[in-house]
Amino acid sequence: MAAGCFIVLEGPEGAGKSTLAAGLRGRVRAQGHEPLMVREPGGTDVAEALRHQLLDAERTFTPEAELLYIVTARADLVARRIRPALANGQVVISDRYDLSTHAYQGAGRGVDAAHLRWVNAAATGGLVPDVTLVLDLDPAVGRARQGLAGKGADRMERESAAFHERVAAAYRAATGPGVHHLDAAASPEAVLDAAWQVLVAALPNLFRRWPEEQLA
Amino acid sequence: MAAGCFIVLEGPEGAGKSTLAAGLRGRVRAQGHEPLMVREPGGTDVAEALRHQLLDAERTFTPEAELLYIVTARADLVARRIRPALANGQVVISDRYDLSTHAYQGAGRGVDAAHLRWVNAAATGGLVPDVTLVLDLDPAVGRARQGLAGKGADRMERESAAFHERVAAAYRAATGPGVHHLDAAASPEAVLDAAWQVLVAALPNLFRRWPEEQLA
Repeated sequence: MAAGCFIVLEGPEGAGKSTLAAGLRGRVRAQGHEPLMVREPGGTDVAEALRHQLLDAERTFTPEAELLYIVTARADLVARRIRPALANGQVVISDRYDLSTHAYQGAGRGVDAAHLRWVNAAATGGLVPDVTLVLDLDPAVGRARQGLAGKGADRMERESAAFHERVAAAYRAATGPGVHHLDAAASPEAVLDAAWQVLVAALPNLFRRWPEEQLA
Repeated sequence: MAAGCFIVLEGPEGAGKSTLAAGLRGRVRAQGHEPLMVREPGGTDVAEALRHQLLDAERTFTPEAELLYIVTARADLVARRIRPALANGQVVISDRYDLSTHAYQGAGRGVDAAHLRWVNAAATGGLVPDVTLVLDLDPAVGRARQGLAGKGADRMERESAAFHERVAAAYRAATGPGVHHLDAAASPEAVLDAAWQVLVAALPNLFRRWPEEQLA
């Protein structure tokens, strides 16, 4: 079986990552691949337990402790789900990965960049996505989309507007191999089409244009 | 209620930490305190799930990933069990804490010392034991005591003799506020008596001599 490929969706809350993930899943399936869909933090017993703590509105975390929980959840997900799937030739689509850590814990919380890079590399063992799709959106729009009134929101969602602006700015500034930006203010269908064009261009041996080549 | 106190037992495998913990628990109880007994890694749902992975003989870890699992288990234990108990005036006795990380992941596995200190501080939030009792023992004796034939042993126990010698050497060299060394080659009763003398000297307002002052 061919080597798998690793696709990551990134962006602030409300940018439409889960909608895009569902759309991509449908297209990948229609072209004959059954993708592994994962979401950070989560995807293993360890990572779900850590997620539960991270989202607990009753808990407080130092930025550094929060970072440990997130990267350890990532380490477990990479080791037990993502690497085995890639080794088996599968397409893996993850809602969040290392760029989230740079945006939220780095830019958002101000954790020291050198230590952040080190723990992130420790967690991933150097596994880099083939393609990272960054959904750029004004964070105020994103939060309004989610209809968050502050009450009942989880610990991350309750953060200040300034925090979410730092996160969004870090996303907008993100560059690197395989990193592509999409305008998340467009319609879900337009975002999906734009994302698919990126994937076809980046991974032409794996994906075909949509829908013209669907039956080719 | 008075502020609690935090006692840590350290040393290589087979040094007798769990026997000492049981003995100390009995004496602390007999003097009117109900101690919280914990063991690393473990003590919360998160930490037990991480422990299960760490001891899985089928898994491989980079030294850095192993470090993340261990310190994140510690962070969860400190935040959810140890700090609340101490705030409530309780005596906390932990089988392993930060010195284990320096001995196993630092000296044993060679993880970079500066990053190791940073992640450890991130995990503990700076919580330092009042007393750390280090059980010094020739690692070959410790392993013989445990009757480990290599087969059926967990992932840490299967490590080489050279690894365990580096760990033991790090323990023997450990110094710092509240760190006391005990000769673990002595009988369990002698080790318990020596440990108790240390605690009475270090925490005279909390513990009395044994058994003379038991009813004082």
